[in-house]
Amino acid sequence: MNDMMRIENALTVALAEADHQPCPPGLGEAMRYAVFPAGGRIRPRLTLAVSQACGDSAPVAADAAASAIELLHCASLIHDDLPCFDNAATRRGKPAVHVAYGERLAVLAGDALIVTAFDTLGRAATDAPERLPLLLGTVAKSVGLPGGIVAGQAWECEDRVNLDRYEQAKTGSLFAAASVAGAVAAGVDSAPWRTLGAKLGEAYQVADDLRDVLSDAEELGKPTGQDAANDRPSAVRQYGLDGAKKHLESLVEGAIESIPACPGQAELKTQIRAETKRFMPKEPARAVA
Amino acid sequence: MNDMMRIENALTVALAEADHQPCPPGLGEAMRYAVFPAGGRIRPRLTLAVSQACGDSAPVAADAAASAIELLHCASLIHDDLPCFDNAATRRGKPAVHVAYGERLAVLAGDALIVTAFDTLGRAATDAPERLPLLLGTVAKSVGLPGGIVAGQAWECEDRVNLDRYEQAKTGSLFAAASVAGAVAAGVDSAPWRTLGAKLGEAYQVADDLRDVLSDAEELGKPTGQDAANDRPSAVRQYGLDGAKKHLESLVEGAIESIPACPGQAELKTQIRAETKRFMPKEPARAVA
Repeated sequence: MNDMMRIENALTVALAEADHQPCPPGLGEAMRYAVFPAGGRIRPRLTLAVSQACGDSAPVAADAAASAIELLHCASLIHDDLPCFDNAATRRGKPAVHVAYGERLAVLAGDALIVTAFDTLGRAATDAPERLPLLLGTVAKSVGLPGGIVAGQAWECEDRVNLDRYEQAKTGSLFAAASVAGAVAAGVDSAPWRTLGAKLGEAYQVADDLRDVLSDAEELGKPTGQDAANDRPSAVRQYGLDGAKKHLESLVEGAIESIPACPGQAELKTQIRAETKRFMPKEPARAVA
Repeated sequence: MNDMMRIENALTVALAEADHQPCPPGLGEAMRYAVFPAGGRIRPRLTLAVSQACGDSAPVAADAAASAIELLHCASLIHDDLPCFDNAATRRGKPAVHVAYGERLAVLAGDALIVTAFDTLGRAATDAPERLPLLLGTVAKSVGLPGGIVAGQAWECEDRVNLDRYEQAKTGSLFAAASVAGAVAAGVDSAPWRTLGAKLGEAYQVADDLRDVLSDAEELGKPTGQDAANDRPSAVRQYGLDGAKKHLESLVEGAIESIPACPGQAELKTQIRAETKRFMPKEPARAVA
């Protein structure tokens, strides 16, 4: 079974109870709508890639961690898109959850996805119970206090924002957890794996900032120009277009160089290089302000 | 150390990282504001009472479960009070979180409290790692799918609502988890403990419905008459005032009778009877429609 199938299967199992009573139908539908069809699944694929490079000794634990991380990512997108934040009309090329299901079900679907993520993570206990506490702490800290994605989003509510800290929290933290969790699930020392995810996360954020300027909304599946419109910190606004591109390349190289010695090191380097090509922004076909 | 001190200490530890960098100050303040000063702490006190009645063999696990459950309760209050739901101006006698900190930080503080709850629950592993998976599943299902408090809140978005299922999800589920988690933390068979919490939860919801009609806002610390104003299902609206009172008494008796045999059974029965007196609504001093 390839990685994408493992992830979709694990997510399907995680949301199995959303489909029928006693789950309220609207909540279940809104949750499914936010999770399927698949986006890039870049974070859970990183978890599985790291676990496999390290021997994948507890595949159920790896699947649990990967799907929990993706559910938390989907939850953060729903709440980011709410009227009180970005008020985004579209996401992944379709109406945002609050547009399709209303603001109340958008709040609740985000909440329920967070809870379902931790419930799903508990499945790790079926093949590696001794790894659950570290998995739980790793995943929770990447979303919560003091520097997880919720904290990252909360920096948008402060008058003074440190860009590095903001991006580290808003994007880097969950990527770092994705690589660390892959190593924890595989039962190897996870600390050396943090840099890979952290740098990929930073790279992804810079690529996202670039796409916000370089892409058009149809291509991107969500509105563009949002950073400037929402007066939000952005690598392009901080470093300029060329500076941001150079920063992105350096982050990708640093990520690949950081991959620790492991049975699948060479294959993982190839895989990460191919993966980062997918999220690098295309050169603009036309001049963009 | 008495139960209330154990709970406040555990909650203080859980929110320790909210106080300083790199946590964004506004998020940390909003979280503290939602959790302190103490409300009744009725759910976590139930967890500790059950654990103690069963021998309290892993007090760190019991504290972790109790504080996680209280954090989840506080999170649910913040999101329930949001403008898109009850739009409540006050809670626990002070401005609601969204009034004090704005809607964005209210959404995020709720999210972060959910995540912090699961992070805190992981502390159970320090003295009873083998009990963590069941604790995690118990707590997660009481908040999430298919019938946890988020699902309960989502029934308010449906056209057709079954009152029993709604109250079971919105209130009963977390109370049931509070008693079950106390037994799990203590390492005893937890299944027989579900009825105690479930019935107390139903009783608490009926008492809350009665208070919404019988109390004034100053006494209650939050607006009254909300069930009718929001066209929300309520035991008073379903059974009438006297019917709801009788239902409440029968639930409390059923809860006490359900307490399983355990070393502290007699003391726990006394404790629960005293506890339920605290949340029973006072007789109205004036006629109420």
